Amino acid sequence: METIKGLKRSCYCGDLRAENIGQEVVLMGWVQKKRNLGGLVFVDLRDRGGICQIVFDTEVDKEAFEKAEKLGSEYVIAIRGEVRERQSKNPNMPTGDVEIFAKELRLLNKSETPPIYIKDDDDVSEALRLKYRYLDLRKPHMQRNLLLRQKVTNIARQYFTEQNFCEIETPFLIKPTPEGARDYLVPSRVNEGKFYALPQSPQLFKQLLMVSGMDRYFQVVKCFRDEDLRADRQPEFTQIDLEMSFVEAEDVMNTIEGFLKILFKEVRGIDLELPLQKMTYAEAMSRYGSDKPDTRFGYEFTDITDVVAGCGFKVFADCAVKGKSVRGINVEGMADKFPRKQISHLEDCAKTYKAKGLAWMKITEEGITSPIAKFFTEDELKAITEKMNAKVGDLLLFVADKDAIVFDALGQVRLAVAEKLGILEEKKDQFNLLWVTEFPLFEEDEENGRYVAKHHPFTSPLDEDIDRLDTEEKDTLRAKAYDIVMNGYEVGGGSVRISDGEVQKKMFDALGMSQEEAQNKFGFLLDAFRFGAPPHAGMAFGLDRLVMLLAGEDNIREVIAFPKNQNAVCPMTNAPSFAEESQLEELNIKVDIKKDEE
Amino acid sequence: METIKGLKRSCYCGDLRAENIGQEVVLMGWVQKKRNLGGLVFVDLRDRGGICQIVFDTEVDKEAFEKAEKLGSEYVIAIRGEVRERQSKNPNMPTGDVEIFAKELRLLNKSETPPIYIKDDDDVSEALRLKYRYLDLRKPHMQRNLLLRQKVTNIARQYFTEQNFCEIETPFLIKPTPEGARDYLVPSRVNEGKFYALPQSPQLFKQLLMVSGMDRYFQVVKCFRDEDLRADRQPEFTQIDLEMSFVEAEDVMNTIEGFLKILFKEVRGIDLELPLQKMTYAEAMSRYGSDKPDTRFGYEFTDITDVVAGCGFKVFADCAVKGKSVRGINVEGMADKFPRKQISHLEDCAKTYKAKGLAWMKITEEGITSPIAKFFTEDELKAITEKMNAKVGDLLLFVADKDAIVFDALGQVRLAVAEKLGILEEKKDQFNLLWVTEFPLFEEDEENGRYVAKHHPFTSPLDEDIDRLDTEEKDTLRAKAYDIVMNGYEVGGGSVRISDGEVQKKMFDALGMSQEEAQNKFGFLLDAFRFGAPPHAGMAFGLDRLVMLLAGEDNIREVIAFPKNQNAVCPMTNAPSFAEESQLEELNIKVDIKKDEE
Repeated sequence: METIKGLKRSCYCGDLRAENIGQEVVLMGWVQKKRNLGGLVFVDLRDRGGICQIVFDTEVDKEAFEKAEKLGSEYVIAIRGEVRERQSKNPNMPTGDVEIFAKELRLLNKSETPPIYIKDDDDVSEALRLKYRYLDLRKPHMQRNLLLRQKVTNIARQYFTEQNFCEIETPFLIKPTPEGARDYLVPSRVNEGKFYALPQSPQLFKQLLMVSGMDRYFQVVKCFRDEDLRADRQPEFTQIDLEMSFVEAEDVMNTIEGFLKILFKEVRGIDLELPLQKMTYAEAMSRYGSDKPDTRFGYEFTDITDVVAGCGFKVFADCAVKGKSVRGINVEGMADKFPRKQISHLEDCAKTYKAKGLAWMKITEEGITSPIAKFFTEDELKAITEKMNAKVGDLLLFVADKDAIVFDALGQVRLAVAEKLGILEEKKDQFNLLWVTEFPLFEEDEENGRYVAKHHPFTSPLDEDIDRLDTEEKDTLRAKAYDIVMNGYEVGGGSVRISDGEVQKKMFDALGMSQEEAQNKFGFLLDAFRFGAPPHAGMAFGLDRLVMLLAGEDNIREVIAFPKNQNAVCPMTNAPSFAEESQLEELNIKVDIKKDEE
Repeated sequence: METIKGLKRSCYCGDLRAENIGQEVVLMGWVQKKRNLGGLVFVDLRDRGGICQIVFDTEVDKEAFEKAEKLGSEYVIAIRGEVRERQSKNPNMPTGDVEIFAKELRLLNKSETPPIYIKDDDDVSEALRLKYRYLDLRKPHMQRNLLLRQKVTNIARQYFTEQNFCEIETPFLIKPTPEGARDYLVPSRVNEGKFYALPQSPQLFKQLLMVSGMDRYFQVVKCFRDEDLRADRQPEFTQIDLEMSFVEAEDVMNTIEGFLKILFKEVRGIDLELPLQKMTYAEAMSRYGSDKPDTRFGYEFTDITDVVAGCGFKVFADCAVKGKSVRGINVEGMADKFPRKQISHLEDCAKTYKAKGLAWMKITEEGITSPIAKFFTEDELKAITEKMNAKVGDLLLFVADKDAIVFDALGQVRLAVAEKLGILEEKKDQFNLLWVTEFPLFEEDEENGRYVAKHHPFTSPLDEDIDRLDTEEKDTLRAKAYDIVMNGYEVGGGSVRISDGEVQKKMFDALGMSQEEAQNKFGFLLDAFRFGAPPHAGMAFGLDRLVMLLAGEDNIREVIAFPKNQNAVCPMTNAPSFAEESQLEELNIKVDIKKDEE
């Protein structure tokens, strides 16, 4: 290993075991802890490999002992010494069987008292952790997470390379999309008044690479999106991005499953059973109210709209019309776990997701307890419980509303129930993966009263839906799009692209986009398609989220070395910051902050 | 392999050999060439793997034959057929022993006549190649270059991972450096009036990762520099970037040599002899006039300043003062190859690099031929030829001027001589690697009459020069900085960093930078250094240039999928372009082009 001031580091602190007893070693690292005891100085020395106990004894080396007495937390030192059997073994440390008797100590650097403790369970605010990220990253779990991240990308690269994928770097300074909301722009100095954009994804370039015959492309690549931030979003994020020629959806899914199989085996020791479950979007919505269902537990939806169509409870009865429904979940055997207060929490959750309320029934030995029971006849109640497959001890929860609201609100209630019952915690090491397929091709842009592409306008419709592209009922059209879902998170998605010019034309028509507008937006891709585009399809994984799940973390900032906070600010460097006037001048721009209308 | 429209691709076109005769195969690709001959249709089908000849015969399949007759260049097709022995074998094609008799043809896509030919030796302007890059990338050598690039990064990742390096992604949206000339800025929408910068390198972050104990970091990473473009520069470029803790320069160089050994073996089949040659900056300049000498050939400099100090040729004699010199190269035995006209070309070259002229002498059987011979005595001429080790048939070339101009101009003349003599072409498969070390710590910023850091202000001085940091003669101070040089190109460089606060303070003083200014520029790094910075050193390779050299190309655009041209424009997408007013408004900026003073 490496040499510093004449000392040659021999191993990491964490490497030492009983079999090293008697060896002379040189270690370099940080002082985790120092204490004087029985005329000796004990130092816990920490490096990337772990922690080891060093003993300084005047009888071994007086000079080293005297230097050691002056050490403080996080001082950087090098020591040379002999590995001995530890007197009081520490079974909680991998190196707990040994300690090093130091013959030499070199102080490499001092440290002021660090503002945060270097230990995993330190209960300090995230703001402070991000401000002193260079100290926060000294924590073992953060180092483990970054090493895991490297392992995941290495596995991906090895797998995709073996599968004949070529990793190709696509540009970061690209052309802004007209109306490209959420583009980060970069003013050009040389080309006055013009701007580059940072890519939201390499989508167009990877399709061009297919036109260029590269056959199979992949890339681990940073992408940028200037959106309002949520807990699991960052202005810059990393994708494992890929595209394949001469394939259909099935080929992409098989390829990805091969990757996931190896990934889970190597990272978590889990044998995934292939092929993974496939579920259409429609089925996922009707069973779980979500296009990214957490299938580690049940509590699936039951549609009781028909059963309550003519009942006396107006809220339910009114939903027996197109576009509305009444659906429930049966929290089997758990009625006792949900006193009224808990149910009221669940109702709050439902309301957060725009439901007007959350109806409930408990099945007891004495019959049904429910504030809404009085609105139903005995027969109606019987029909409901039968449809819900309810028995004594069960809790039934219902939402009645527009379908979209029912799905959303009841889906979130389902998750809240699982959280409350400790199911998520209990199953945190279980990974349920599935494909969700046949996504809607379009979604309604309610603000502008028109349809937009759910993925992007190059996504191919299902073959059987192509002829209906000009239909009125655009929300019934399905795409050759697929997401890979893991424990309730979408970790990746992709689609078969349109490579037929005629279909592409119909697609633009359906989106209300003129050929001119299409040309303006995607001209170079459409140009390329005129010269022999192969059929192609692709996929992108969100690396941050994938690593987060594999690491068992619940926040992507735990797997990113230097993340931004929720205001898109880096608390360590204070980026972004004001630029100097002269810089802006060179770039031919001016800051121009509009005050809110006065 | 993959399936399309019910056909399952069996291999790449280029895979087929005599041993495949009799097999049924399914191929997919582009029509390279089609011709009718003897009642048959022959198609050269191309994919990423190569080219194979397909034969369509009405007797094998009439429908396929009829479809084949209508094929045009670059049509995309799938064929199913039988591999047969080729009648007229083509030894120039890897698949030249076989041809495929097609039983089925599916047209996957048509193509208009492509604006450039899909062949390596097509003599078309680079502007057109870049405009239709998706077609240009169909050329075999471009695909080979991109695959080579992937191979290089894969080798790097495997090697550095094995050497315990952790690949860590550093942020792209960072804090602008005050006075950060050449920063690309990115306006923040959320943080009104503030800007991110795109990183010119991950320098500060990798040093922070050392402070955080990551021990060994590396990354293959895009960097950005908004500078006036030269042939081998791009606004965005890729580095193999690394940093190590607890090391000195020697450790970094050993680690890098291990990488280069494997790289050259795997990519070019060359066994590098280690350790590589090391040459100080001072030696490189005095022998080759360059800090990146091409050592594949000689023609080294000889300093004849002393010899001509008192001579009658004023131009030479006047250079016998500090800071000036007269140096020459002996183009041994090549006097005949340089008639006056050629020497005049060399003189133009010298003048381009600011020399006032290029003096020359030819040693002939009859004596010395030279326009300046008349200014010297016989003894002086003898002393010169002796010092230059000249014999009959040699050409001597001299530049007399300020040292910097002598080095630059004569160094370029040396290269021009090698070019003219065909040495560069002849040695294009030879790779001479060496380390250039002990770079100057400072360089003079002539414009502002002060010294600036040659690398960056965190570069450590040589131990023996630290005490002279406050000296007047700053240009004599040397840094622990090293470059790796290959055939006259700098392909990488690095340094040991300062990790001692006191030395850092002296360094800022030497740069005339107040503590306040330093804090403002590098505050977060200086803060981090207060909490236990390990000794550390690092390196960065220019990936584009490394791959260019390994690929035998002479332009980095040949190894970049979608490069910008010399105006920082992408001719394919027309990036950069004008942004919409609404976008700029959201970003709180305004375009403000200053007209040249009127």
